[in-house]
Amino acid sequence: MSRPADPRHLLRQLFDAALAVAQPAKVVPHFLPKAPPRGRLIVLGAGKASAAMAAAVEAAWSGPLEGLVVTRYGHGVPCRRIEIVEAAHPVPDAAGRDAARRMLEIAKGARADDLVLCLVSGGGSALLTLPAAGLTLEDKQAVNKALLACGAAIDEMNCLRKHLSAIKGGRLAAAAHPAQVVTLVISDVPGDDPAIIASGPTVPDPTTVEDARRVIARYGITPPAAVARYLESGHDETPKPGDPRLAGSQVHLIARPQASLEAAAAAARAAGVTPVILGDAIEGEAREVAKVMAGIALQVRRHGQPAAAPCVLLSGGETTVTLKGKGRGGRNAEFLLALGVALHGAPGIWGLAADTDGIDGSEDNAGALLTPDSLARAHAAGRSGAADLADNDAYGFFQAIGDLLVTGPTLTNVNDFRAVLVL
Amino acid sequence: MSRPADPRHLLRQLFDAALAVAQPAKVVPHFLPKAPPRGRLIVLGAGKASAAMAAAVEAAWSGPLEGLVVTRYGHGVPCRRIEIVEAAHPVPDAAGRDAARRMLEIAKGARADDLVLCLVSGGGSALLTLPAAGLTLEDKQAVNKALLACGAAIDEMNCLRKHLSAIKGGRLAAAAHPAQVVTLVISDVPGDDPAIIASGPTVPDPTTVEDARRVIARYGITPPAAVARYLESGHDETPKPGDPRLAGSQVHLIARPQASLEAAAAAARAAGVTPVILGDAIEGEAREVAKVMAGIALQVRRHGQPAAAPCVLLSGGETTVTLKGKGRGGRNAEFLLALGVALHGAPGIWGLAADTDGIDGSEDNAGALLTPDSLARAHAAGRSGAADLADNDAYGFFQAIGDLLVTGPTLTNVNDFRAVLVL
Repeated sequence: MSRPADPRHLLRQLFDAALAVAQPAKVVPHFLPKAPPRGRLIVLGAGKASAAMAAAVEAAWSGPLEGLVVTRYGHGVPCRRIEIVEAAHPVPDAAGRDAARRMLEIAKGARADDLVLCLVSGGGSALLTLPAAGLTLEDKQAVNKALLACGAAIDEMNCLRKHLSAIKGGRLAAAAHPAQVVTLVISDVPGDDPAIIASGPTVPDPTTVEDARRVIARYGITPPAAVARYLESGHDETPKPGDPRLAGSQVHLIARPQASLEAAAAAARAAGVTPVILGDAIEGEAREVAKVMAGIALQVRRHGQPAAAPCVLLSGGETTVTLKGKGRGGRNAEFLLALGVALHGAPGIWGLAADTDGIDGSEDNAGALLTPDSLARAHAAGRSGAADLADNDAYGFFQAIGDLLVTGPTLTNVNDFRAVLVL
Repeated sequence: MSRPADPRHLLRQLFDAALAVAQPAKVVPHFLPKAPPRGRLIVLGAGKASAAMAAAVEAAWSGPLEGLVVTRYGHGVPCRRIEIVEAAHPVPDAAGRDAARRMLEIAKGARADDLVLCLVSGGGSALLTLPAAGLTLEDKQAVNKALLACGAAIDEMNCLRKHLSAIKGGRLAAAAHPAQVVTLVISDVPGDDPAIIASGPTVPDPTTVEDARRVIARYGITPPAAVARYLESGHDETPKPGDPRLAGSQVHLIARPQASLEAAAAAARAAGVTPVILGDAIEGEAREVAKVMAGIALQVRRHGQPAAAPCVLLSGGETTVTLKGKGRGGRNAEFLLALGVALHGAPGIWGLAADTDGIDGSEDNAGALLTPDSLARAHAAGRSGAADLADNDAYGFFQAIGDLLVTGPTLTNVNDFRAVLVL
C-alpha cells in the first residue's frame, strides 16, 4: 500500500467520517413514521444531540408537529415549531427540571391517536431531571454524590436515578399511554442499552425499588430523610418489561459508537490504511489506556501485529481522568498527551482523540492531534510533556504547539473517538 | 471452527508453549560455538534464567569449560563445572557483589585465545552489582531510590546504574579483551535491547558520564558525596559503540517475549482458535490495562473485532501495581482480578496471566486463571472481587476459588504472559 500523503489530514478525515454517520440531519429522516398519525405528532426529547435531532425532524417532516426538547447550554439549534430549552449538564439545574415537568405534562395530555416521538441522546439523564413526588433536586444530588464517593458502579447509580425520578426509567412513556411512543436514540454508552442512555425515559426498567434500597444498604449510605421515606414507601415502581402501557412503544437506535468507528474504518480503507477496531467501549484511566495503545502501536511497527502498517487503531468509549495537577484539559487531550509521552517520539505514529460531541471535558476543544514530533516541538516551546501530564495540563501542551482540535459543538454525541495511525 | 473442549486446559497449553520456546535447555545449544576455542571456554553470567542457561551449556558442550554464574535465590540449578552463586533480587546483596567482583577478575584473566561465553537474562542488573571504585552498594542504592522517588524514566535509571558500576554497560566485555566474547541473551525488556537487559555487561553503552550528570541535575538530586565526586571526575567512561575492545564481541538474542507469544499463537491456531498478538511490551497500571483488555474482549464477542471468536488476545510486557491495600498478589493476579471485575461475569471469556519466571511479584504462584464464573464462585466463598481488588488481594481471591497458577521457578524469564480467550 502507498503511504498516505498527510497523516494529519487523514486523521481528521476519519474523525469527520465518524461524525458524519452520527449527524441527526443524516440519520433521523430514515426513522420517521412513514405516515402521519391520525392525531398530533408530539416531539419530546433530551440530550446533547436532541435539539439537532429536533431540527432534523422539522426539516424532514412535512405535516404538523409540536413539542419540547431540552439540550445542554450551547447545544441548542433554532427550531420553528418545537420549543428548544437549554439547561445545565452534567449537574442539573432548575431549567432542566422545569422542562422535564412540562414534558411530563405534555405526555400526560397525549391521546390514543397521537404519536409521541422521543429524541434521546447522551447527557439526557442530567438534562431530564424531575425528582419524584416529595423529593428535591438537592435530595437526588446528595444521593448521587454519596454513591460517587463510595465508588458505586454506574448501573447502581442508574438504578437510584431512575427510582428517585418522576420521568426516567420508562415513566415518560407510561405517562404518554395510550398514545403510541416512538423513541429515536443516539447512543453514547457501552453496550448501547436504551434503558441506560439518558436513563431510558421511554424504556421499561428491569430494576426495582428493592434493588435501589439494596444499593443504599450495600454502601451504608444515609440518604436524606425524604429519600429514605420515599424508597421505604415503595409505592411508585417504574414500568417493568411487559408493562402494557409500554407495549406499543418502539425504540430505534439511530447512531452509536460502533457505527461511527465502522465509518472511520471505511474511510481508512479507502485511503489504503488497514483499520483495526479495538472496541467501541474502551474504558480506564486515560493515561493508562494510552500506555496500552502505545504498546499496540509499537507492536504494529515492530512486528506487523495485530496488522501491518499502514494501519489505524480505532476505539471508542470513555476514559476517565483522576485529577492530581492544576492544568486544563479533558480526557481525550490527556489520553493523547500520555500517548505521546509513552511513545517518546517513536517515528511513524500519529494520533487523534476527541469527544464526538465537540467538547472535551469542559474546555473549548473537541480533542487534539499528536505527531511524532509533538514532544520535540513542545520542548522547543519551553514545555515538558511529562511535566504537563503530571499537572493534567494536556490543554496547555497542545495549545502551545497549535494542535488542539477545535470543532465547537458537533450536535451529536457517540462518546469518544480515538485513532492511532501507524505508518 | 469448533469450540475448544476445555478453556482452562487450552490456556495452560498456550502458557506452556510460551515457556517451552524460552527454555534454556532448548534454545542455548543452537547458539554455542561450532568449534572449541584454542584456549579455554569461560562461562560467565547473571540473571534469573542464567543458572539454567549454564546447565544447558554443560549438557550440550562436550569440551572442557569453567566459569561462574550468579542467579536469584531459589533459581539455582546444579552444575558440575560452572560455579553457581545465588544472590538477592531485586535489592542487591553482598553475595551478588562478591560474585560480580570475582567475575570481573575472571574476565581480566582471559587470554586472546580464550572464549568468554556470557549468559545474560532479566534480573541480571540487580544480581551483577559491583560499585565503581570508591563507591559502596549503599551509594548506588541511595541514587536508585532517589531516582525512583522522583519518577525518573527507566532509561535514566539505567544510565546511572551503568555509570556507577564497575561491570555494567560493556565493562565486563572490555575487561575480557582481547579474549573473544559471545553473549547469549534471554530478553525480558520491551524492545529487546541487549544494552538494557541486565544493564548490558558486554554491550557498548551509548550513554555518557555527562548524560548521568544531567539526569542527576534534572531531578535536583543530591547524591552521596562519593557519587558526586565520582561523576565529576569523569575518568571512567563506559565502552562506547565502536570501542575496539568490544569489536569482536557477539550478542545473540536466544529467547524473547515476542517469540513466546508467537509460540502461544501457533498453539492457539492448532487448537482452532484465532490468535491476536496485541504487543510484546504492553505496560501500564495492571487494573487499567485489564479494563482495556476487557473492552477488546467484549468487542470480540459483540462485533467480531479485531477478530471473530474463538479468539485469544495475547500480550507480553510488564504491568505495574500501585499498592493501596494490604492484600497479597503480584501484578499478574491483580491484572486478572481486575479483568474479572471489568467483565462482570460476561459469558464466554476466560483468562490466564502469569510471570514467565514462575514468580508473580513476591508470591509462590506464577499467576492465576480467570473463568466466567470466577466472581460468582468467589462470592459463594464469601469474597467480593471488587473488595479484593480495592485491597490489592488478588492472591487471596484466586486462592479462595482454587485458581492460583503455581509452577515454581520456570528457570526462564521472558516477562509477563497474558492470554484472554473469547469463545
